[in-house]
Amino acid sequence: MMQIQVKIPAIAGTSYTVTIGTDLLGGIIEDVRQIYPRHRFFLITDANVLTAGLPGRLAADKSDELMSFIIEPAGEVSKHIATVTAICEIMDKNAFGRDTCILALGGGTVGDIAGFAASIFKRGVPVVQIPTTTVSQADSAVGGKTGVDSTISKNAFGTFWQPAAVFVDVSTLKTLDERQYRAGLVESVKHALIRDAKYFEYLEQNLDKILARDESILQKLAVYNCRIKAAVVEQDPKEANLRRILNYGHTIGHAVESASNFKLLHGESVAIGIVGAGIIEDKLGLVKDDRLGRIKAMLEKLGQPTSIPLYLAKQQVLTLISHDKKAAGNEIRFVLLDKIGQVHEEKGKWAVPVATELIGESIDLLFHE
Amino acid sequence: MMQIQVKIPAIAGTSYTVTIGTDLLGGIIEDVRQIYPRHRFFLITDANVLTAGLPGRLAADKSDELMSFIIEPAGEVSKHIATVTAICEIMDKNAFGRDTCILALGGGTVGDIAGFAASIFKRGVPVVQIPTTTVSQADSAVGGKTGVDSTISKNAFGTFWQPAAVFVDVSTLKTLDERQYRAGLVESVKHALIRDAKYFEYLEQNLDKILARDESILQKLAVYNCRIKAAVVEQDPKEANLRRILNYGHTIGHAVESASNFKLLHGESVAIGIVGAGIIEDKLGLVKDDRLGRIKAMLEKLGQPTSIPLYLAKQQVLTLISHDKKAAGNEIRFVLLDKIGQVHEEKGKWAVPVATELIGESIDLLFHE
Repeated sequence: MMQIQVKIPAIAGTSYTVTIGTDLLGGIIEDVRQIYPRHRFFLITDANVLTAGLPGRLAADKSDELMSFIIEPAGEVSKHIATVTAICEIMDKNAFGRDTCILALGGGTVGDIAGFAASIFKRGVPVVQIPTTTVSQADSAVGGKTGVDSTISKNAFGTFWQPAAVFVDVSTLKTLDERQYRAGLVESVKHALIRDAKYFEYLEQNLDKILARDESILQKLAVYNCRIKAAVVEQDPKEANLRRILNYGHTIGHAVESASNFKLLHGESVAIGIVGAGIIEDKLGLVKDDRLGRIKAMLEKLGQPTSIPLYLAKQQVLTLISHDKKAAGNEIRFVLLDKIGQVHEEKGKWAVPVATELIGESIDLLFHE
Repeated sequence: MMQIQVKIPAIAGTSYTVTIGTDLLGGIIEDVRQIYPRHRFFLITDANVLTAGLPGRLAADKSDELMSFIIEPAGEVSKHIATVTAICEIMDKNAFGRDTCILALGGGTVGDIAGFAASIFKRGVPVVQIPTTTVSQADSAVGGKTGVDSTISKNAFGTFWQPAAVFVDVSTLKTLDERQYRAGLVESVKHALIRDAKYFEYLEQNLDKILARDESILQKLAVYNCRIKAAVVEQDPKEANLRRILNYGHTIGHAVESASNFKLLHGESVAIGIVGAGIIEDKLGLVKDDRLGRIKAMLEKLGQPTSIPLYLAKQQVLTLISHDKKAAGNEIRFVLLDKIGQVHEEKGKWAVPVATELIGESIDLLFHE
């Protein structure tokens, strides 16, 4: 077991611990009781996590006492404000008060919805993030971003709400189906690309063991991911500038994900977005070596798409890109790489404007990569 | 014109200015442009404020350029999450981004809804509060509480989201009908009761001028109110303890307001709640002088109710009190006075537990005050 401290200096007195290990679930409630001895727990999870039996392992022998909300159907289709409202209404009707502690058990959707609910219930109650997927363990559980989709764009509504604690139990990854497991690994690739060339090499060298879900390697990945994420979030919790590097591959990724109506998984969409960012980097003369080949080779070994499926409409993808939250003053901004492990900076900014025509040409190419 | 600085030390770097004066509306947008030169403005107001012609005065000659959302019907009946969602969806569909600045023009409901929308749109954009009613100018516009009602309780869902700036234009109070104008003055009475005996005397001495809406007196009230509110909020922005004193009269007040299905105005309900708190104080031996007589006399001169209307059901009022957010660990807590200008403290706490039986007896009496 390994613990990493995340400090959010912009919010006085705020810090929390990320605990990484195997077979942690059964001890979490007892651990959290140390922080909140008198709070009432409320569990938020989804139908898939329930089927995998994880809520029972979390509650140990006390399932009867733990009230819960099961998000159904699981996944992005439930990630809208009506789900958040339903959760808050149920807590309110059952006389949960400010002394509520929400446990979020599941993937990114569960964490985003539960974190959002926690941030608005009685003007904010603590949430403990217990991510159970590759994508949420690598990325979304740490950092305090919460949110749901609007009718037209992803994560349009939400808050910054740091968790009270995070528990990364890599054993839970064994419950994932192969497609979901692999897609989530793209967030680990992204972390390596933006901050750590050595981590990228480590991923290249251990791909087979990673795909075999070797628990000791998975714990190492979790430590790499949490350290990178924590270091960035600590410096810029509200995404004024530096934190935007975590969106590498996400500008095109989110657009493609929405355009596919979520037939493409988040990680698959980000894989396409990473290749798209690479094409833009190439057009802008930022690529001096064969890094695009290395990156594409890794994504392909992970079984990820590296081009936009032909059934998507180019114009819709472009419209969705222009709705991206990083858009400001009609400029569309991208996070781009100078090299593996190093994001490109321009005039002190980590998300840089890219001309509309160049984006259009790159999207054309991305249909045929 | 007078400016008061509010500093929220728990949030690094957060402070904002409250500007108090007459005929301010036409200059506000220009003032805010100094802080946010490149933001797009979005106006949130309601049908009553529109009828009173205030949005036109705010927009000056540029009404066409200012996109807006009109809450309709005005008032508590629209204060639910569907309204917040509708506002956010409209902004999203019109490609408003993180560089949005929301202008909240209206009473407490408009401010609470607009502040909540600002706090969750794209994970938070600035909001400028421009309160136009006695209750919102005295209380809700400063301090950063936002929220909407659930199906069973008031302000059940919301956030703490400090405004970017507040403009208190007392000229706007001339647009209020007599009942709404008077009810809102109860929040000024509350401020005097919890923090400033001299302010209470000032109110007693100037009641006629206040009721005649004398602008120079109204500006003095605004300065008193904002100073008291700011001093409390600065010390305890998230209502861990001290800030609860601002809820004086609100525990019973909110319950009565909900039970009446909002036929009672907020200020009228708080007037009843203040008398109710007085009865509890009396039963607990906290009243040594004739302060209840003075307080009731003032409320009566303001034309406020001082007893629970007989058409309300006692049991419903008691149930709603137990849903109050100040309830914790099954204890119902009240803010109580030691004397005018001084809240009662117990073991370092400003909201103190009161036995259920004593609450029941006090509510009985409050039906027949």
